[in-house]
Amino acid sequence: MFERLFVPATAREATSAAAWLQAMLDAERALAVAEARAGVIPTEAAEAIAAACRAEAFDGDAIAEEGRSVGNPAEPLVRALRTAVGGDAAGYVHWGATSQDVVDTAAMLVARASLERILEELDAVSDACASLAETHRSTPMAGRTLLQQAVPITFGLKAAGWLVAVREARARLAEVLDTRLAAQLGGAAGTLAPLGGEGPEVLRLFAEELGLQEPVLPWHANRVRIAELGGGLAATGGALAKIAGDLALLAQTEVGEVSDPAAGGSSTMPHKQNPVGTVLAIACARQVDGAALLLISSGAQEHERGVGGWQAEWAALSTTLAYTGGAAAAVRETLGRLEVHPERMAANLGRAGGLVGAEHASFLLAGSLGRESAQSVVAEAANRARTNGSSLVDELAWDERVELTREELAAALAPAAHLGSAEAFVDRALRLYRDERAAV
Amino acid sequence: MFERLFVPATAREATSAAAWLQAMLDAERALAVAEARAGVIPTEAAEAIAAACRAEAFDGDAIAEEGRSVGNPAEPLVRALRTAVGGDAAGYVHWGATSQDVVDTAAMLVARASLERILEELDAVSDACASLAETHRSTPMAGRTLLQQAVPITFGLKAAGWLVAVREARARLAEVLDTRLAAQLGGAAGTLAPLGGEGPEVLRLFAEELGLQEPVLPWHANRVRIAELGGGLAATGGALAKIAGDLALLAQTEVGEVSDPAAGGSSTMPHKQNPVGTVLAIACARQVDGAALLLISSGAQEHERGVGGWQAEWAALSTTLAYTGGAAAAVRETLGRLEVHPERMAANLGRAGGLVGAEHASFLLAGSLGRESAQSVVAEAANRARTNGSSLVDELAWDERVELTREELAAALAPAAHLGSAEAFVDRALRLYRDERAAV
Amino acid sequence: MFERLFVPATAREATSAAAWLQAMLDAERALAVAEARAGVIPTEAAEAIAAACRAEAFDGDAIAEEGRSVGNPAEPLVRALRTAVGGDAAGYVHWGATSQDVVDTAAMLVARASLERILEELDAVSDACASLAETHRSTPMAGRTLLQQAVPITFGLKAAGWLVAVREARARLAEVLDTRLAAQLGGAAGTLAPLGGEGPEVLRLFAEELGLQEPVLPWHANRVRIAELGGGLAATGGALAKIAGDLALLAQTEVGEVSDPAAGGSSTMPHKQNPVGTVLAIACARQVDGAALLLISSGAQEHERGVGGWQAEWAALSTTLAYTGGAAAAVRETLGRLEVHPERMAANLGRAGGLVGAEHASFLLAGSLGRESAQSVVAEAANRARTNGSSLVDELAWDERVELTREELAAALAPAAHLGSAEAFVDRALRLYRDERAAV
Amino acid sequence: MFERLFVPATAREATSAAAWLQAMLDAERALAVAEARAGVIPTEAAEAIAAACRAEAFDGDAIAEEGRSVGNPAEPLVRALRTAVGGDAAGYVHWGATSQDVVDTAAMLVARASLERILEELDAVSDACASLAETHRSTPMAGRTLLQQAVPITFGLKAAGWLVAVREARARLAEVLDTRLAAQLGGAAGTLAPLGGEGPEVLRLFAEELGLQEPVLPWHANRVRIAELGGGLAATGGALAKIAGDLALLAQTEVGEVSDPAAGGSSTMPHKQNPVGTVLAIACARQVDGAALLLISSGAQEHERGVGGWQAEWAALSTTLAYTGGAAAAVRETLGRLEVHPERMAANLGRAGGLVGAEHASFLLAGSLGRESAQSVVAEAANRARTNGSSLVDELAWDERVELTREELAAALAPAAHLGSAEAFVDRALRLYRDERAAV
Repeated sequence: MFERLFVPATAREATSAAAWLQAMLDAERALAVAEARAGVIPTEAAEAIAAACRAEAFDGDAIAEEGRSVGNPAEPLVRALRTAVGGDAAGYVHWGATSQDVVDTAAMLVARASLERILEELDAVSDACASLAETHRSTPMAGRTLLQQAVPITFGLKAAGWLVAVREARARLAEVLDTRLAAQLGGAAGTLAPLGGEGPEVLRLFAEELGLQEPVLPWHANRVRIAELGGGLAATGGALAKIAGDLALLAQTEVGEVSDPAAGGSSTMPHKQNPVGTVLAIACARQVDGAALLLISSGAQEHERGVGGWQAEWAALSTTLAYTGGAAAAVRETLGRLEVHPERMAANLGRAGGLVGAEHASFLLAGSLGRESAQSVVAEAANRARTNGSSLVDELAWDERVELTREELAAALAPAAHLGSAEAFVDRALRLYRDERAAV
Repeated sequence: MFERLFVPATAREATSAAAWLQAMLDAERALAVAEARAGVIPTEAAEAIAAACRAEAFDGDAIAEEGRSVGNPAEPLVRALRTAVGGDAAGYVHWGATSQDVVDTAAMLVARASLERILEELDAVSDACASLAETHRSTPMAGRTLLQQAVPITFGLKAAGWLVAVREARARLAEVLDTRLAAQLGGAAGTLAPLGGEGPEVLRLFAEELGLQEPVLPWHANRVRIAELGGGLAATGGALAKIAGDLALLAQTEVGEVSDPAAGGSSTMPHKQNPVGTVLAIACARQVDGAALLLISSGAQEHERGVGGWQAEWAALSTTLAYTGGAAAAVRETLGRLEVHPERMAANLGRAGGLVGAEHASFLLAGSLGRESAQSVVAEAANRARTNGSSLVDELAWDERVELTREELAAALAPAAHLGSAEAFVDRALRLYRDERAAV
Repeated sequence: MFERLFVPATAREATSAAAWLQAMLDAERALAVAEARAGVIPTEAAEAIAAACRAEAFDGDAIAEEGRSVGNPAEPLVRALRTAVGGDAAGYVHWGATSQDVVDTAAMLVARASLERILEELDAVSDACASLAETHRSTPMAGRTLLQQAVPITFGLKAAGWLVAVREARARLAEVLDTRLAAQLGGAAGTLAPLGGEGPEVLRLFAEELGLQEPVLPWHANRVRIAELGGGLAATGGALAKIAGDLALLAQTEVGEVSDPAAGGSSTMPHKQNPVGTVLAIACARQVDGAALLLISSGAQEHERGVGGWQAEWAALSTTLAYTGGAAAAVRETLGRLEVHPERMAANLGRAGGLVGAEHASFLLAGSLGRESAQSVVAEAANRARTNGSSLVDELAWDERVELTREELAAALAPAAHLGSAEAFVDRALRLYRDERAAV
Repeated sequence: MFERLFVPATAREATSAAAWLQAMLDAERALAVAEARAGVIPTEAAEAIAAACRAEAFDGDAIAEEGRSVGNPAEPLVRALRTAVGGDAAGYVHWGATSQDVVDTAAMLVARASLERILEELDAVSDACASLAETHRSTPMAGRTLLQQAVPITFGLKAAGWLVAVREARARLAEVLDTRLAAQLGGAAGTLAPLGGEGPEVLRLFAEELGLQEPVLPWHANRVRIAELGGGLAATGGALAKIAGDLALLAQTEVGEVSDPAAGGSSTMPHKQNPVGTVLAIACARQVDGAALLLISSGAQEHERGVGGWQAEWAALSTTLAYTGGAAAAVRETLGRLEVHPERMAANLGRAGGLVGAEHASFLLAGSLGRESAQSVVAEAANRARTNGSSLVDELAWDERVELTREELAAALAPAAHLGSAEAFVDRALRLYRDERAAV
């Protein structure tokens, strides 16, 4: 029930039971074709097998349930496929392969289709971030550290930060997609013995048929690429959860700097605007963490095939991929409809007596007073402002040691006057992003 | 696909979409009844609502998909239930409650049904362990530490060790089941404001209707009981994975001390006897770890309802419960058909020159030679036995410092002659287990 | 460096290297004494051994480094202890025991001392929560769900929620402390063979000497109690992180409902009031999650002693205990000096046009308008209030369908007028807590 | 105590308190130098600061303890550094930077030094694997799947599999080292406001001074690189644990195909040869998993600096790095002294009636009998061999449907006769490895 609730159909379908079934059949088809090309099995057999490798002809539920008696779904699928193929060709189904060849190769195909979809979503998220970064390049808002207002930033800088994190996570996933998804073919224990001397050639053709990497060796018990998938997806989930978390904090009733017009209603409170997209994204990212943990820690598998460690990967991989897609979709949707409220950003900056200008004031006064005195003067003024409910500008103007007038102070401490390199940083991020997108 | 492969139907159904749907409807029914009993809503309304709370009348998939727009499944269910109830009574559906009241209460009901099934499985596992412990109370086998033969134990002692671990894990789950599954009812933010002064009374009746604990306070943002479920289930998964792991090690071709007659075949190797039950159990236990992690780390939820942390619990709880059940079923099935080979246990003990008697020899000789000399004499003999391919008994007999004859040594170092308290410990475990079972 | 930064000395010392060393020596001492009492070794030997079991006489660093060559710290410690004891008694050191007996027993002693300290901290945290709950039993504040204002609660109710979670977590830890910390004594593989028939009796006396539970069997490869420690500590970390997280959110510049007068300064911003206590608590709780994961997933250990899984527990247990203590200390300190600002709570409730009264308004109007119409009327008014920057009361008063006057509406929707059972729930929590404390 | 036991000094020192202290000072030094080069602070001040940045002049323990009151170690270090620098230059210490700039940059420096050491260890592990692969390129042994003998492989193929996994994990770490370790410099909230327009230039020079990457933006709240470190290290830990696990299984008393001459003794069993190196490696890898989990799940940090999530990274990063190094060292040491027993490999292959030839037999007979009949004939023969304690060759020779003679069968089913592409695969792995090493 819950995957359906959290993950939209587009992000779910690549990891569905039907997708796994077809991916296993694609592996069987490619194996037969590769073996025929290498002269290992008759071409007619390969053609008959290839023709039968259509998921809709098989009962996925039955295969899963039968799979329980052998510990994997490939064995019952091979039996069913042999029946479907019939005749002499049936004997050439799965020729020389082992169940893990089929399931691991299918896992790579599932991962590929799913990663491609995730990369598209991440591009859409990136576009939305870039658009916000550009639009709000110079929109002042409070920079907040440890949830306290620190110094002014721009909303564009915040969005640029999201953008860069998403691009970094995406770059890693793209690398995994391009270089780390490999065909699996080793036979019973990695020697491809039934193929005689043709093992490596069949492996090469098999990988070619599927458009997957050709591995140096069968990798039945080398799970580094699984760990890399887990690591890359967890990093992506984190980058998305960061955006969602910031949005939820900015949308707080008391902050109100962004809002989600499609925010979900409440079953009981007519006024409630629940930040549903952020909820979905964060919940998805947490699923990703739990499942990715399993993937990054599944390295230690016994001898030539693991006892349980390997088999545990399948559900975890599906969950990690699906929910990463779910998180990306939720963030994309939310950013796509986000309402930004610069006036609330400005108002919040003005709250609490403009203390957000304190750092700038201390650097401003350091020239005349020295760094240490300047810090003291500003700290005292900040304390008075807090106590008196007045403003930092007023309290500094009141202090005789400060030689600037109230007007000078007000101008200097206006948030827009001390944004430092915020806009320059936004430009850097956008430039890089555009170059990257142009290069595709 | 994979839950179907790893978890038998009996362990899956309590956490299925249909089960969650009915559990949410049970919560709505109990709420209406409790409110009618407390005089908060009309009795007729409660009756109409109760009559409509049948899962088969609702479209679970549609509810899950609609739930995405509000971030939970209760809101669309409540809407559908209102439509189903119709008339004036419709207005009294979900009266004063919030979505989390329904989902958390449903989670407790799902957990209850699932835990009850798991406890039954654990009892069956316990029975099988106890039976093995009793039958093999005195069957010598090698005790192995760090995968090296250490000293003799009995297979009964090993099985008794499994038994005690399963009973400890079960005891904790039973405690959680009996004392920590609480109804949830707090309304929008835990004050039950719409119920006026009747809040606590409705809460009491609501819990009573459902047979759940009445909590001191609504626990929307207190997730200790969720963490306790996670901790208890992870401990159980570990106890089961321990049994499965030992069985897989004992069933190794080179060890052969147990075998599984229903062992799964291979898709390519006619002779292969794959220990499928242990594979399933270990794979299930790993899923439990990943999902339980999420449950034990979901404590820090924001204010009166979490942003994502709460929502992430649902899938994780389902996974943890279902796969714990899957692990238990796999272990039960495997133990139920296990073939034990005492002759292989004896043969393995005799391997490597009977070095498994070395500790006993050193204590045996400590009386005449002193502890340190005895250790040296035995260590030297063990080294010679290893190098010469002879036996410890022969090498000790050869050593002039040892005053015992070869026959005396052989008798003293026979595994059955130095089992220490193995049998007494078996008896302790069985006695406790029987008392426990008798007490039910 | 970092344990020192996050965990105060009082919470660190029970898991320090010195504490582990003394705990291992305590195990050796108790073993010797128990064996002398059982007549297994000479009383004089036991006395000589007991006298030598003082940590300050040993070089912990050297023992740790030597331990690397055998994979545990007990073996080099036993050698050093034999040297320290000297004479005939040296031969009776560690008589019949195995390294794991010493390390596991020491782990239980370390856990005991650490848990006792943690329980004290949790009592202090509870006292602080109870005090806040009592003082602010009726102080209205916004209840917030998904970080949006929902309906009014009282700050006392929030504190009572913290209190109940801490008490639940504490109750579980106390149970683990009282019933699950067991002596470990099994010898090489759990048979206590060198003790002949005296095994169980020595085990009983050994446990008695140490004040630990006597286990049914040696539990070298039964790690349920380790998982229970991990689960209980993770739940506790979560309950503490929940408090810290709420405080950090309440202390936000824009919310300002609590503040920490000892808040840490910034290295560069003179005005900054960083919520340091909450930072420490949350950081500690995250360490607890990572380390507890290892503890809850360490069940599957091989045969009679694990290959790596057991040894990995030691550091993880130390980390889990120390950082749980660190989290508790940080929360205690923060609550102890917390400044609460009811006026800000009231002001925040008044923000956004008093929409926090919307649920109450819809129940208020349901009598005259019916539930559905009432919801619509209120939702429309809420939308107008949001758009116009006006208030819910004004917009409802303007609506002709609403028969109440502006004054009646204002009175009814005042937060204090619809707190539901908030105060009653506070009383329930406090009553339970007082009974519990009185019962000690 | 435990890091000292599990991690050798060489792998510990890069993450020690002293190393962190020096790394933070290196950051302060580089900042001053960069700012002087950019004309932001006087050159003399930078020189004075640089001269003072020596860890030995500071009290790390005191800094850690003082750090508790501000939640990070940089703030007290900056204060101590100002005192050490004295005079006017003191005011220019940490100019414009924030604590996180210093700690994050230090984390990258610590990671760099530690990764460099880990890569060296992985190269040594690779060398050892390559050497085993070459030496045992054609040494037959049982390939084992699900811990059952499957078909023959060579020990060289197993070692080649370890090699490839280690190279893959190493390649990823090298990539992280080369491209993902970036300087951190953003000031209070990422704008570098105190540096006026010089922010980006100072950032460039700062990165240059340290030899770290220059990031597009400050990455205070973008933790993708932290997650990548965690993912890469976890994958490495897994690859190492795989080797250690295989060695422990091969070293089992009943298998005996490898042994570790430096195997640790037992505190009580004179004959025991504990596989200590594998224990250390597996225990280390489990620590890596727990700590890496924290790193891969730390993405969601609040606004411009996290509340606890950031601070939790420091200890976890140290643990992950140190224990990955510990695992690598333990595997290197173990492989370096490993004794391989080809005669035991051959003997184990011969066990159980040579059933390990069953797959080959079924392909051998498929030509004359057809695939399905061949499978049946072989399966029946295997069953008879198991039941009768005879051999597969004998039982096949006995079967009239099989046209080959006993001698022909014996020759064909000799393990060395059906190794498939094992040796070709070994050659592929070695070729790639040599090319890679030559390319450096």
